[in-house]
Amino acid sequence: MLKTPAIVVNVKTYAEGTGERAVELAKIMDEVSKETGVNMVIAVQATDIYRVSQSVDIPVFAQNIDPIDPGSHTGWTLALAVKEAGASGTLINHSEHRLKLADIDECISKAKKVGLTQIVCSNNLSTSKAIAALDPDVVAIEPPELIGGDISVTTADPDVVRNTVEEVKKINGNAKVLCGAGVKRKEDVRKAIELGTEGVLIASGVVKAKDRRKTLESLAEGILSAK
Amino acid sequence: MLKTPAIVVNVKTYAEGTGERAVELAKIMDEVSKETGVNMVIAVQATDIYRVSQSVDIPVFAQNIDPIDPGSHTGWTLALAVKEAGASGTLINHSEHRLKLADIDECISKAKKVGLTQIVCSNNLSTSKAIAALDPDVVAIEPPELIGGDISVTTADPDVVRNTVEEVKKINGNAKVLCGAGVKRKEDVRKAIELGTEGVLIASGVVKAKDRRKTLESLAEGILSAK
Amino acid sequence: MLKTPAIVVNVKTYAEGTGERAVELAKIMDEVSKETGVNMVIAVQATDIYRVSQSVDIPVFAQNIDPIDPGSHTGWTLALAVKEAGASGTLINHSEHRLKLADIDECISKAKKVGLTQIVCSNNLSTSKAIAALDPDVVAIEPPELIGGDISVTTADPDVVRNTVEEVKKINGNAKVLCGAGVKRKEDVRKAIELGTEGVLIASGVVKAKDRRKTLESLAEGILSAK
Amino acid sequence: MLKTPAIVVNVKTYAEGTGERAVELAKIMDEVSKETGVNMVIAVQATDIYRVSQSVDIPVFAQNIDPIDPGSHTGWTLALAVKEAGASGTLINHSEHRLKLADIDECISKAKKVGLTQIVCSNNLSTSKAIAALDPDVVAIEPPELIGGDISVTTADPDVVRNTVEEVKKINGNAKVLCGAGVKRKEDVRKAIELGTEGVLIASGVVKAKDRRKTLESLAEGILSAK
Repeated sequence: MLKTPAIVVNVKTYAEGTGERAVELAKIMDEVSKETGVNMVIAVQATDIYRVSQSVDIPVFAQNIDPIDPGSHTGWTLALAVKEAGASGTLINHSEHRLKLADIDECISKAKKVGLTQIVCSNNLSTSKAIAALDPDVVAIEPPELIGGDISVTTADPDVVRNTVEEVKKINGNAKVLCGAGVKRKEDVRKAIELGTEGVLIASGVVKAKDRRKTLESLAEGILSAK
Repeated sequence: MLKTPAIVVNVKTYAEGTGERAVELAKIMDEVSKETGVNMVIAVQATDIYRVSQSVDIPVFAQNIDPIDPGSHTGWTLALAVKEAGASGTLINHSEHRLKLADIDECISKAKKVGLTQIVCSNNLSTSKAIAALDPDVVAIEPPELIGGDISVTTADPDVVRNTVEEVKKINGNAKVLCGAGVKRKEDVRKAIELGTEGVLIASGVVKAKDRRKTLESLAEGILSAK
Repeated sequence: MLKTPAIVVNVKTYAEGTGERAVELAKIMDEVSKETGVNMVIAVQATDIYRVSQSVDIPVFAQNIDPIDPGSHTGWTLALAVKEAGASGTLINHSEHRLKLADIDECISKAKKVGLTQIVCSNNLSTSKAIAALDPDVVAIEPPELIGGDISVTTADPDVVRNTVEEVKKINGNAKVLCGAGVKRKEDVRKAIELGTEGVLIASGVVKAKDRRKTLESLAEGILSAK
Repeated sequence: MLKTPAIVVNVKTYAEGTGERAVELAKIMDEVSKETGVNMVIAVQATDIYRVSQSVDIPVFAQNIDPIDPGSHTGWTLALAVKEAGASGTLINHSEHRLKLADIDECISKAKKVGLTQIVCSNNLSTSKAIAALDPDVVAIEPPELIGGDISVTTADPDVVRNTVEEVKKINGNAKVLCGAGVKRKEDVRKAIELGTEGVLIASGVVKAKDRRKTLESLAEGILSAK
């Protein structure tokens, strides 16, 4: 299970997060996590799960699994393979990898079966509630108001996040909630926690930062300063 | 470039070809290849490319790449990541992972750009010709007459394979051709070579064999006995 | 809005439900509906919506819409076009046409915007709840226990259907529920209604029946005999 | 078979080309075609094939078919249904509706089986050649240099189009070629014909024109003035 509050860094398929550079970033995260005591998770490409998980103690997540069992599924991503490579969880239904509803449901089941924590991404209030009904470990909400722009959690109407958290918990009291958009700086992390989420999902803000260690330390402070 | 004639083993997402068991199979293939002098290639899940390629000298291939460049493509398979993990090539458009025509074209380009050999699978005469026109390194033909059944290359009408090879070469004289169906035993490999292909693509016949070493040795003999 | 209780017949892409034969079936349904007073709906291929809706008074539904707005979307199905052709509703996420979660959400919105009633199909308890959270007019539940076999609603454990209805209503009290599997005969319809659904979704049982009028009359009796 | 040279107008899912407005445009095309003697074809949404084909004499095409046979394929587009609704042909693999290679091949076969002319769209030289190898009636080439911009066939390097036409014909001497990009004005049509194509595929240039009749008359002049 995901230890929270947590900072989850998704390296996507950024060149800066591929291969040896994924290992380097994971090591920095591992150090900052140990120094600050703040939980950190890195979600890497399938090709990089093994080498990254061999190099660090923080949890390594896959970025996707496919709704398949062992068998004739050439080129697809098997939960078991992800697990055996060293991952302890996986993202599901990321905005760059949307899945069919029936497949999200299948992926959650298959992840549970092999012991992978599931972080399932949603894109608005109604899909957040729908995902909560599928009973994943974590829902990563990305309120459209907060995506891809200058608006951060701190400046946006706080009710957007608070309301989504409440509605998710109403349908599924066990699901943890991450804030998957509008998080760039320390204040955003603090605010996300104070609005009821159990952490943040962040990508370029860390992976493409000039000083990745300093950025991670600052985000960790955001977690620690939240009341 | 693929050294031919070659035996390409696709472990799919078989449990028997996942994680440490993929490494074990690759080691057997490595040994048989060295003993017999016959070229062997293993196509493994993305998660397993790194550890397999760290363990053997034979070429390791991916089972798929996606038509993407480095960037925001969470959960997809990047040619660069596959290459950096240690692969020297990739399957494209396998029958269990069919791609859009425009994407096959893109995948071939992206594989070439990072130096991955491309084996592109086809399902009949007309798609074999179409793929030849896209100029990949290798076309793996799977004549429908030979797929999923008891009919092997040796017993089938030899003209099916010979004709496909000729038509492919007519459109693209540089493309090598593998026989991707109907190959189970030594005689099938020999026959495939004699009909003009430069090797075979095989999966369960090796991965699920009772004695994988003996099976590989037998297939290697098929290559060596071809005239 | 769908008048309930109702019998919804999906002609799929059966030859027996294509073109003029869709019109013929719709006319029989129209007559049986008028004779019995039981609400009937026919879901036809996009190509046939116009001619069928010109020929009958019963509601004509599309079998799918795509999550698009008017614009550059060659070959996709526009809610507005479906509406203007004469449809009053649409199936969404049928088991033969599964959609991404985010797209189901979009399709529901786009259908509402042009005034199309939405029947969204689910495949088990958890996806039924998820769909209820998306607030469609109707959820067509297809308990896996009842799909594709000899088990009918009448013989199956009644709790499967009753429980799904209850859970759906708990999440969304406004959503109507149809039973989309295990319905073949009069008794199945009656039982489906008695278990709390507002009707049934049926396909080959009607379209491929030897005597379609008699079959429809019998199903209508099932509705009328329910307590 | 498509009578050439021809002007093929694709109304996409433009509001201006939906329902009754598709019928209106088709009637104008019908009149201009009769007045000028220039072959015109309108490709409409599946929902509109029936009513448009009932209203005009020019050929009506579908914008897409799916690789299916009659049966359980809810919500997909059946070649037979398109044919029975009155279409005499179909676009396949439009840039807004890309298909898998194996499916393009299947769609061509299924269209031929029911007697629908196939116009298959390509996106560059190599996919144009690949499509030619699949033996459709018509290849609609869209050289990337000409797409979505101010560059028209007349101003672009004429060798791009001429070379694609030659390469297509080299692989398949029977395939006709349309120019599917860079066509806006009379001169573009003339030039497209002079470069070896048998007509043009055009969308917003006609559908969104202020004066659609005048625009069509002008494009027809382009055909007539070509040497």
